[in-house]
Amino acid sequence: MKVAIMGYGVVGSGVAEVLKKNHESILKKSTLSQLDLKYILDIRDFPGDENESLLVRDFNLILNDSEVGIVVETMGGLRPAFDFVSACLRAGKHVVSSNKELVAEKGFELLKIAEEKNVNFLFEASVGGGIPIIRPLSQCLAANEIDEICGILNGTTNFILTKMINEGMDFESVLKMAQDNGYAEKDPTADIEGFDACRKICILASLVYGKHVYPEEVHTEGITRISIADVEYARDFGGVIKLIARAKKLDENKIFAMVSPMLVPGESQLSTVDDVFNGILVKGDSIGDVVFYGRGAGKLPTASAVVGDVIDCARSSGKKKFFGWGEGAPGYVADYLDAETSLFIRAEAENPCEALDAAKKTFGQITLLARTAAPGRELAFITPAATERELRTKLETLHILTPLSVIRVAES
Amino acid sequence: MKVAIMGYGVVGSGVAEVLKKNHESILKKSTLSQLDLKYILDIRDFPGDENESLLVRDFNLILNDSEVGIVVETMGGLRPAFDFVSACLRAGKHVVSSNKELVAEKGFELLKIAEEKNVNFLFEASVGGGIPIIRPLSQCLAANEIDEICGILNGTTNFILTKMINEGMDFESVLKMAQDNGYAEKDPTADIEGFDACRKICILASLVYGKHVYPEEVHTEGITRISIADVEYARDFGGVIKLIARAKKLDENKIFAMVSPMLVPGESQLSTVDDVFNGILVKGDSIGDVVFYGRGAGKLPTASAVVGDVIDCARSSGKKKFFGWGEGAPGYVADYLDAETSLFIRAEAENPCEALDAAKKTFGQITLLARTAAPGRELAFITPAATERELRTKLETLHILTPLSVIRVAES
Repeated sequence: MKVAIMGYGVVGSGVAEVLKKNHESILKKSTLSQLDLKYILDIRDFPGDENESLLVRDFNLILNDSEVGIVVETMGGLRPAFDFVSACLRAGKHVVSSNKELVAEKGFELLKIAEEKNVNFLFEASVGGGIPIIRPLSQCLAANEIDEICGILNGTTNFILTKMINEGMDFESVLKMAQDNGYAEKDPTADIEGFDACRKICILASLVYGKHVYPEEVHTEGITRISIADVEYARDFGGVIKLIARAKKLDENKIFAMVSPMLVPGESQLSTVDDVFNGILVKGDSIGDVVFYGRGAGKLPTASAVVGDVIDCARSSGKKKFFGWGEGAPGYVADYLDAETSLFIRAEAENPCEALDAAKKTFGQITLLARTAAPGRELAFITPAATERELRTKLETLHILTPLSVIRVAES
Repeated sequence: MKVAIMGYGVVGSGVAEVLKKNHESILKKSTLSQLDLKYILDIRDFPGDENESLLVRDFNLILNDSEVGIVVETMGGLRPAFDFVSACLRAGKHVVSSNKELVAEKGFELLKIAEEKNVNFLFEASVGGGIPIIRPLSQCLAANEIDEICGILNGTTNFILTKMINEGMDFESVLKMAQDNGYAEKDPTADIEGFDACRKICILASLVYGKHVYPEEVHTEGITRISIADVEYARDFGGVIKLIARAKKLDENKIFAMVSPMLVPGESQLSTVDDVFNGILVKGDSIGDVVFYGRGAGKLPTASAVVGDVIDCARSSGKKKFFGWGEGAPGYVADYLDAETSLFIRAEAENPCEALDAAKKTFGQITLLARTAAPGRELAFITPAATERELRTKLETLHILTPLSVIRVAES
């Protein structure tokens, strides 16, 4: 069987590298007599590249070549990836993708085509880079009802937050450093605004709860407004601020899903997931808490997940994988304001003592937090748990203080 | 399709419970129209049990019933489990087992029969309870060459060590408490002597490196000789003592494998795996470090892993899974004394200062450790890295001190 790669960027070139480097053991595991890379599709030139002879610019060469049984899509973006992938599936080819945008937006549609054509559409690399998560969720944990899944799904923002926490650097300085080091993109919007984490939690939620969850349905906040002051108060609380993506089952026809910075207590397994690492916590009804930890991005980790899927396609040719991923439904994702939470509130006030008294009267039992060298007008506290709507409504009545930060508190 | 359970103990009754509780979603995931429990084999009586009507004592009822397509083996032990499982496979039935002793001793043989008969023999629950590890290793990480796998694979010993570390209780007291609470068996030998962890690392090593590793080939030490003094010195070093099971590739025809207590530095992800939890660290050439964390035992976690395999058998009927698990070979597991390590040595001497001087002369650069209220004649230090054989030979020449504890130090 022959393999084609569409998109010769970081991940695509990693796939070519892993296929070559571990060719012998991959072939053995594929249980095929032959599994070779035949084409690499890219519109760019790569003069002198070791795979130059495989490079093509015409997608139809791949589509119409019956020798090509498995197509790897590592182009990223929705177009033309969606058109190419759906055409390949329709032509009876297995497709393996690392493209989280594609899977988050078009997963249901593509899985439906794959099912009709009795081929596989696999996407282990789209969440958590090399960390095995899609297959464990859809297979190993199949006997569980998953109550909740929450995780640190974006390495760039976790790197930035870790530097802020451990070295007291401010957001802008770390972002610049991360860009200089190649940990963050020149346009870091998708990472720092939470869009990347949002796509990933959409994929996990769709897989686990059985209906397609679209990114626009998920309330998403990034980390751009997190300050060192927030980080210091979090430490006083015995916790850390992390960008957390969450999905939770409410009932048969409703889930909660959100991406936002959260104050994570030190006892949580996620509190020690640092730097560019990802961590995913799954709560199952039978299994209890399970955590998956590893590098969530990077050329070779991601490529190795792609190649794992390629091997699986080769092995199970003619036998498609089952994902219980159905169509989305209006109103399926609940309004996040109806969810229960505690809030960390940092604010300023002319008279912080009076403001704290007012906060106590409004919220009831609050937990006061302190940090060294806080400005005289600053105050910070944690509210009791209530629906977010109720807490925000109460906060709006507190004219005596001006909120500077409002961050949700994770359960420990 | 019908399912039979052999062995109605803790795990077996959990399997019956999970099959019933999540029947609807399990049926959907199995892609079958029917998946029902038909028999439970046990020699004991369970009067009044909700599944009493399914209980049988005659194995041949299951073996000869062509409706039974999947047999779950949760009996434990080698006999008669091996005879029953091999007979079921030969009769063309899929078998799912949680029995680590069976898989560690007979995995190659049973997989061979399964392959000949084109059925599945699956055993996700045999390692790490509910933590998905077998399938991720054999599928998701298939594109990786696994350099090393090491983990905390036994919950009972980890519970005991955690209590010793966090509460300063001695081994005997915690063991008694664990037995009273049901965390440890009345006969705790298999746990505290490391035999249980040894079976599990044999299964993982066989799977990952492709040749059957037998328990008797793996040097195994338990935790019975770990003292509070060792725990305190480990803390001074910034680490903790854990029972670590390891396997490492040396070359195509040789691996290293061992189970022993180790001094684990605080930076290691395994150092924070506490209580009855298990943690498994996998080092792949492409993926880097990946950690799997969760409850390594217990009725429902283990049962949910078994049922995950049952679903997989139902889905992939007629299409067998591939495990690259070949026959064992003499000399395949290297002599552990040839492996490089540092040693933590706690000793006593008439004159500790003189003994330390002698230790420095013998080993070279040593790291001295201290603990509060140490007896006047006690000393403790860490040697530089060398082969264990070399270090032990040197230690034997040091007549000036009497070793009380010798514990290997894990790389961070």
